[in-house]
Amino acid sequence: MKIGIVGGTGEIGEGLAMRLAPRHDVVIGSREAEKASASSTECMGILRGRGTPCVLRGVTNQEAVDHGEVVILAIPFTHLAATVSALTGMEKKVVISPVNPMQRSDIFFFDPPPEGSAALLLQKLLPPGTRICTAFNNVAANRWRALDQTLDYSVAVCGDDAGARQVVRGVVESVPNLKAFDAGPLRVSPMIEAITPLLLNIARHSKMKDVGIQFR
Amino acid sequence: MKIGIVGGTGEIGEGLAMRLAPRHDVVIGSREAEKASASSTECMGILRGRGTPCVLRGVTNQEAVDHGEVVILAIPFTHLAATVSALTGMEKKVVISPVNPMQRSDIFFFDPPPEGSAALLLQKLLPPGTRICTAFNNVAANRWRALDQTLDYSVAVCGDDAGARQVVRGVVESVPNLKAFDAGPLRVSPMIEAITPLLLNIARHSKMKDVGIQFR
Repeated sequence: MKIGIVGGTGEIGEGLAMRLAPRHDVVIGSREAEKASASSTECMGILRGRGTPCVLRGVTNQEAVDHGEVVILAIPFTHLAATVSALTGMEKKVVISPVNPMQRSDIFFFDPPPEGSAALLLQKLLPPGTRICTAFNNVAANRWRALDQTLDYSVAVCGDDAGARQVVRGVVESVPNLKAFDAGPLRVSPMIEAITPLLLNIARHSKMKDVGIQFR
Repeated sequence: MKIGIVGGTGEIGEGLAMRLAPRHDVVIGSREAEKASASSTECMGILRGRGTPCVLRGVTNQEAVDHGEVVILAIPFTHLAATVSALTGMEKKVVISPVNPMQRSDIFFFDPPPEGSAALLLQKLLPPGTRICTAFNNVAANRWRALDQTLDYSVAVCGDDAGARQVVRGVVESVPNLKAFDAGPLRVSPMIEAITPLLLNIARHSKMKDVGIQFR
């Protein structure tokens, strides 16, 4: 599968790239192609050092969209609207949102836009027909790059196009140990995104390093 | 521990009573004491039939509150306000809310009151100082009474009183295999309650019978 990671130089983006690279044709996008190049070189070095050499390329975010049959938006919620508004061609893609709008006060809390979730905001921003799905929302950010740790977690996938959900479940399960669960239409996304701040609260109060989730 | 289950004749109430009875002094409350008596007799019969005889008593909801050091509100959200408004003495208790306000259209969705969650509504309805915690929210209703099945799940506990959270975690972990996680203040409750409709969506779309969660 051709996968383009928009915002691929962040913690989640680089981790996703390294975990997906063994099974897919992955490019890392960034606003600056040079930064993406540096990031992909570093990731390839890490993978080679682990005895699992893979090819990654660093490109612009627009080139990442153009490359991908599946486009992953690995960007913070605060940059989501500005980033996707500058991109074209999304209507031909399966677009994955792992984005969680949240804030921190004395607790971490879900802070969605008026549309109800990051994924539902995306639905408003992107051209009609774009096959948007949520996935990867509830995996702790710093687990992605920790390649020694298997991601023994569940991933809820929602979206309005059943075929796209199936494609995304396949991408999810191409990461060893991750298990995908079909959660139905995109309007389920607020309930998925809201889990992430809960996990951060549990981590803090239960004195755990990272907390993930399994459905069973 | 003395535990009073308000609304104890429902699916969750009876299941909780049977699972807690081996380790605690449990009474089942109902609006009608006779209904509670019939329910407790039935539950004792089931437990005796399994070779684990226990004592349960059926009482009124008010007597269940009076009896309990811990009071569990095993009632649907639609009856919550009317039920607790008729009860007194809650300010001396640790009150557990397993209540999830949700609705069903083409999806199951979280439908909280203006306060943000069932637990936060309770905080408004009950006397100041009542030690309210959430617990047991994300265990599938029909699993409670299925005593052959161990509840191999995680339970998020939130509440503003750290001592009460500890008491509730003890009650949770007195049910074999249930594991309690401290999630912090009561304002975390919307994120906990919202998981339940998500699990129902996953069950439907992933063709699973019941879905629970584990934090890990």
